[in-house]
Amino acid sequence: MAVHLFPIRPAAAADDFAGIWLIFQSVAAAGNTFAYTPETTREQFSALWSDAPSHAYVAVREGRIVGSYYLKPNQPGLGNHVANAGYMVDPAARGGGIGRAMGEHSLVEARRLGFKAMQFNFVVAANPAVKLWQELGFAIVGTVPGAFRHTRLGPTAIHIMHRNL
Amino acid sequence: MAVHLFPIRPAAAADDFAGIWLIFQSVAAAGNTFAYTPETTREQFSALWSDAPSHAYVAVREGRIVGSYYLKPNQPGLGNHVANAGYMVDPAARGGGIGRAMGEHSLVEARRLGFKAMQFNFVVAANPAVKLWQELGFAIVGTVPGAFRHTRLGPTAIHIMHRNL
Repeated sequence: MAVHLFPIRPAAAADDFAGIWLIFQSVAAAGNTFAYTPETTREQFSALWSDAPSHAYVAVREGRIVGSYYLKPNQPGLGNHVANAGYMVDPAARGGGIGRAMGEHSLVEARRLGFKAMQFNFVVAANPAVKLWQELGFAIVGTVPGAFRHTRLGPTAIHIMHRNL
Repeated sequence: MAVHLFPIRPAAAADDFAGIWLIFQSVAAAGNTFAYTPETTREQFSALWSDAPSHAYVAVREGRIVGSYYLKPNQPGLGNHVANAGYMVDPAARGGGIGRAMGEHSLVEARRLGFKAMQFNFVVAANPAVKLWQELGFAIVGTVPGAFRHTRLGPTAIHIMHRNL
């Protein structure tokens, strides 16, 4: 695993939410990775990111939140051994290895929490993250044509990606 | 489309829930199709089946609810043109074409509601419903190994299935 020089730690709900919300708004405004539109309210986003049973984390660089991810069961009950996760990086901090560091961190955390595998349900095919996830051991196990209305590219396929832990 | 001799209609939240809940308990007890365990509470199930923006329907035969399904966007915002649905048939009423009738009904309803495609995220590979969905025009677009802990068969693959509308 690569060394990264910024801490990644569990999010403190009250203190960190403002920073996470700022990043979400930047990412959602681009309309190229998330299904969530710029019209998503703060309340809707808060429910998405921290609804129990979910674990939220932040990456902090020079005292500022530059990324965040959540980790949760992808299904309840008889499917809850497979984790799901979602990641965001501050657009102004891209290219600094924050996404990769959070990806590696999440694999360690998921194992520690007892998950046996991790699954992403909605990786936009045009997103460079596809390559990152493949480098981190994920395989594309399914593709749904036209499932994302990319703001710039129009209807775009999404991938389902998976790896064992 | 096959003719079916029982009505399928929108669920009336207050009046129909008791019947839907009975079916859910029977289906969940088998542990062979749903991720939801028999320990799922009435409150959890109610949230699953009728959380907005979701549409719930019931199939009624001789005055009794013998099946139910929900229809909702599979993703928010930029993915909300793809519907997701979940179906249950009373185990005591199986083999009567109720599943197929609800499947056909849901395709008509989904089109009427403006959806452009339908996606199932978690079809247990050992479930005979896989064949039914293929007959109704769905394709397997992805498979996740071991994602379901089948009560009898142990770790079992699940399929992601999709069709355009």
